[in-house]
Amino acid sequence: MEATAVAREALPPSLATRPTLRFEDAWVTGSAAVAGPAEGRGPLGHAFDEVCADHLLGRRTWERAESELHRRALDRLCGKLGLGRSDFDLLLAGDLLNQTVASAFAAREADIPFCGLYSACATFAEGLGLAAALCAAHYVRRVAVVVSSHHDAAERQYRFPTELGSQRPPTAQWTATGAVAVAVEAGAVDRALAKVLAFTPGRVLDYLVKDPFNMGAAMAPAAADTLAAHLAALGLPADSCGAVYTGDLARVGVPVCEELLRAAGWSVQVRDCGSELYDPAHQDVHAGGSGAACSALVFAARILPDLRGGTYARACLCGTGSLHSPTTYQQGESIPGIAHAVTLERVARGNGRP
Amino acid sequence: MEATAVAREALPPSLATRPTLRFEDAWVTGSAAVAGPAEGRGPLGHAFDEVCADHLLGRRTWERAESELHRRALDRLCGKLGLGRSDFDLLLAGDLLNQTVASAFAAREADIPFCGLYSACATFAEGLGLAAALCAAHYVRRVAVVVSSHHDAAERQYRFPTELGSQRPPTAQWTATGAVAVAVEAGAVDRALAKVLAFTPGRVLDYLVKDPFNMGAAMAPAAADTLAAHLAALGLPADSCGAVYTGDLARVGVPVCEELLRAAGWSVQVRDCGSELYDPAHQDVHAGGSGAACSALVFAARILPDLRGGTYARACLCGTGSLHSPTTYQQGESIPGIAHAVTLERVARGNGRP
Repeated sequence: MEATAVAREALPPSLATRPTLRFEDAWVTGSAAVAGPAEGRGPLGHAFDEVCADHLLGRRTWERAESELHRRALDRLCGKLGLGRSDFDLLLAGDLLNQTVASAFAAREADIPFCGLYSACATFAEGLGLAAALCAAHYVRRVAVVVSSHHDAAERQYRFPTELGSQRPPTAQWTATGAVAVAVEAGAVDRALAKVLAFTPGRVLDYLVKDPFNMGAAMAPAAADTLAAHLAALGLPADSCGAVYTGDLARVGVPVCEELLRAAGWSVQVRDCGSELYDPAHQDVHAGGSGAACSALVFAARILPDLRGGTYARACLCGTGSLHSPTTYQQGESIPGIAHAVTLERVARGNGRP
Repeated sequence: MEATAVAREALPPSLATRPTLRFEDAWVTGSAAVAGPAEGRGPLGHAFDEVCADHLLGRRTWERAESELHRRALDRLCGKLGLGRSDFDLLLAGDLLNQTVASAFAAREADIPFCGLYSACATFAEGLGLAAALCAAHYVRRVAVVVSSHHDAAERQYRFPTELGSQRPPTAQWTATGAVAVAVEAGAVDRALAKVLAFTPGRVLDYLVKDPFNMGAAMAPAAADTLAAHLAALGLPADSCGAVYTGDLARVGVPVCEELLRAAGWSVQVRDCGSELYDPAHQDVHAGGSGAACSALVFAARILPDLRGGTYARACLCGTGSLHSPTTYQQGESIPGIAHAVTLERVARGNGRP
């Protein structure tokens, strides 16, 4: 959980010119997490706002069910904050489905100006960073960031329909079912759950991994690259960086990322949302969780509560994404990786929302 | 081309609370347009930086060709500005392919921090608006906005492979082949081609059009909604709004949009990028052009030159997008529409880049 700059000189020179956006007035004021059944049985099940009983949520298809997850997350966020949807100035949302339709179809009913985002499973971090930027610059007062993923919808789109019962290799990850909505606001220190401190958008890196059942390895270089740039830009003492979370590198990707960080001069012990969403003793998700909702569910159910509870003073979430499609891997292409890092800080005042 | 507030009171009350982001220090400093063969034969052919001789650009697949278009647009932008790719702080990019892979695969080589966007054919306007916001707030100095679309790649993904030779109905639009890269900068008034004045992100509206061969009708309500909010927020006198362009409503969507605007109290004569990209006398594209590149190609080859040449003092580009996927229309869903509006202003000083 500690980030140590062993030899900052060892970083590639290009890192020095990479932008890290810093914020003085961007606050997370609320979050709502709606999880699927398997996610509800995991170690964070108690901390979700809603756990769905099944994968269809009363809809006829998995894709419609994912849109319903998206909708429920936003509705629950509004309910928790005592706000209407019109109290949000902007909706930044994305998901893994083709043409990000889970987000778009949920946004039909949101009646909030909508910008669609796509960074695969790093979409939540991209949204959080851009929302903080737009709020802190006082373009808007309040932004909703919503992401979702759905296990069955994603599997049949990216790999095989789950009805086939195809055997998955040990490096495969389990796409999480769920949706998370987070409110980011300006001028809200008195109501804040956490302060958004900084955002480093990442470069697309491709280390020529071609196996869509091994996304951890494909994303690890991008995660290390973004984390090195982000931690360098923060310039914090080694013992104050707090928890460093990757999105969904899982069991295969985490050691690769840590090794690459060490080679760049950073000794960082990484925690991974994909490794904390499920219970390895009772839930066989192979290498770990993934999906756009994965890092967002852990953010809402663990990182944010731990920050508020004082477990750590700061937390970095480095969302990770595989930017391939079925078409690209069927055409023999490798899998480009992306990672975006956002660091949040505990709000010291005792008058936060309970 | 004139926007007249006939009765601003007739606008829905919710419009008053819609955000329009205004910028003091966001400038378009360069653009590069790479067009496909049909687009090159159109009325703007002479104004593109490159017209490709064929649809494959030496690649084995249309999807790879689209990535190549994307890459060439960014390279030509760098060449025209005398900059390296590392002179850009951020790349905002998107396209129509599943998982926006044309952008992601081109970004592998860009070595610029990358945020993926998706608003279908309104992606260019979303990118331009967000780039201006991030520059004007001085988070970054220089952003590249790149979008692309490819006729054959889009047709086989959304509708039918072009080899089938399926007959298209008269309301169908022709997905443009091309890519455009635009540079947006802060602190660049002396080098500016145009100033980015304001950005209104739009709501997702769905008027229950279900025909993917009639996207103009599906997108028209969103365009009218965003334009009404945008023009109201600008608060300019009727004769100074300049040209008002929609992205790709084409022959079917433009009259619907104008009618809806009139009902909301705005008498606006809309020009449409989808109607100006091809020559109706010699190119049968049915209702008109479409695709993420469509509005961007017309922006680079007509709107920006006309602004600089003094044809009008301001120009509004209202990008329009259909947020469906093949899965959603095969599941019987209607087509949600989105529109984002950006207004640019002529830079009066005579010392702009020639």
